[in-house]
Amino acid sequence: MHHFQAQAGVFYGLGVGPGDPLLITLKAHQLIQCADVICYLANQIGTSQARDIAQHSIDSRNEPAKEVAIPMPMSTDRTAANAAYDLGAQQIAEQLKLGKSVVFLCEGDPLFFGSFSYLLERLSDAHECLVVPGISSVNGAASALKQPLTLLQESFVIMSGRHTDQQLTQALNNHDNVVIMKAGRARPRILALLHQTGRTEDANYLAYIGRENQQILTDVSRLANEEGPYFSLFVVLNKERNS
Amino acid sequence: MHHFQAQAGVFYGLGVGPGDPLLITLKAHQLIQCADVICYLANQIGTSQARDIAQHSIDSRNEPAKEVAIPMPMSTDRTAANAAYDLGAQQIAEQLKLGKSVVFLCEGDPLFFGSFSYLLERLSDAHECLVVPGISSVNGAASALKQPLTLLQESFVIMSGRHTDQQLTQALNNHDNVVIMKAGRARPRILALLHQTGRTEDANYLAYIGRENQQILTDVSRLANEEGPYFSLFVVLNKERNS
Repeated sequence: MHHFQAQAGVFYGLGVGPGDPLLITLKAHQLIQCADVICYLANQIGTSQARDIAQHSIDSRNEPAKEVAIPMPMSTDRTAANAAYDLGAQQIAEQLKLGKSVVFLCEGDPLFFGSFSYLLERLSDAHECLVVPGISSVNGAASALKQPLTLLQESFVIMSGRHTDQQLTQALNNHDNVVIMKAGRARPRILALLHQTGRTEDANYLAYIGRENQQILTDVSRLANEEGPYFSLFVVLNKERNS
Repeated sequence: MHHFQAQAGVFYGLGVGPGDPLLITLKAHQLIQCADVICYLANQIGTSQARDIAQHSIDSRNEPAKEVAIPMPMSTDRTAANAAYDLGAQQIAEQLKLGKSVVFLCEGDPLFFGSFSYLLERLSDAHECLVVPGISSVNGAASALKQPLTLLQESFVIMSGRHTDQQLTQALNNHDNVVIMKAGRARPRILALLHQTGRTEDANYLAYIGRENQQILTDVSRLANEEGPYFSLFVVLNKERNS
């Protein structure tokens, strides 16, 4: 099989999938193995979920890579986040100007609710950028549930816990299948809206898909009415399906 | 790295991604390498897009696998399709009862608009079934376009060319970002609806993502007003984004 090589001065956004290290694509794995610089976002104590997922791929390199961890404040304040992206883009640009190949590790898919979008918009004018898609948690969730996301003429909408009550209610009322991403802080609100729209029984809850602490609940009435982890989601599927 | 082994009597649905053989996951690649039986849908002349995508992975096996091609009529007639799934499920069940591990190759993701769902519902009661997610053409399209599918509070809906004019119009009017899958036969209708909803300029068109004949048009007004290939889609993205 053709082996994919990272090119000098190119910035790669790599999806590393939802959590299982074996759900990394061959292309992302090969780029992690050969890139000059491996970059990722890190939280305040320096850990990175994306790097954890890619650990096995990083370990299979012949020699260690230079790593750049971009510190990202855990806050909904966009000013702080934008400053962090500015600093990260600057560090990446420095490496690209030296002719280094730089891969940026993204949980799930790089362009699906991802931080990579904010780096891409800062770097794409001056540098060649390429994107390697990854398994999103939406597809990871369907596989874990062994339930189709869509069949034939069903409609399918992806929302997030950041949407308003009105937007979420509309989605739950108007669409057969609804995935609600980033459900952590919004969990009590989402549980109430599922109840109000009569869709509690259609709902499944998943957290940390493909990781050791994976959690799957097909009866969400058993779920505590409190905030949950950031990487949790609801998958609401029309139970009366025509196949 | 831990090497994943196919287990006796287990049926695996494997996503092989949108077209680029390197967008297969490590897990699907390993299962293709070690499964007893490799299974896929084939059209009337015996070709299978999923098998084509997995060719390199199949070639990297130590010894050839038994292959089972399930013939699928190209028709919108559900009766003919259901008969084909019945026959396919029967052939797969025979292998599983012999204690063989069987992988079923799916384009994109197995549970996203996929035929695998119809085999899963026929086999899951009597046999252990596992699903390995794949890169869907939605994520493949975003990477090819280098455009985010969703940012922050944007809403995102996935439709197909099988939806009615009213359903598609509603989606285009009410959601920032809309992907329309299976756009082949419906192309003239979709182009008209994009025009009517004022979203022609937001639309991108992609066909055969990640294959040699990949086609990307960011100006869909240049697209011929005629039927296109089955594996084509429209990605409609709000151009006035707040990042």
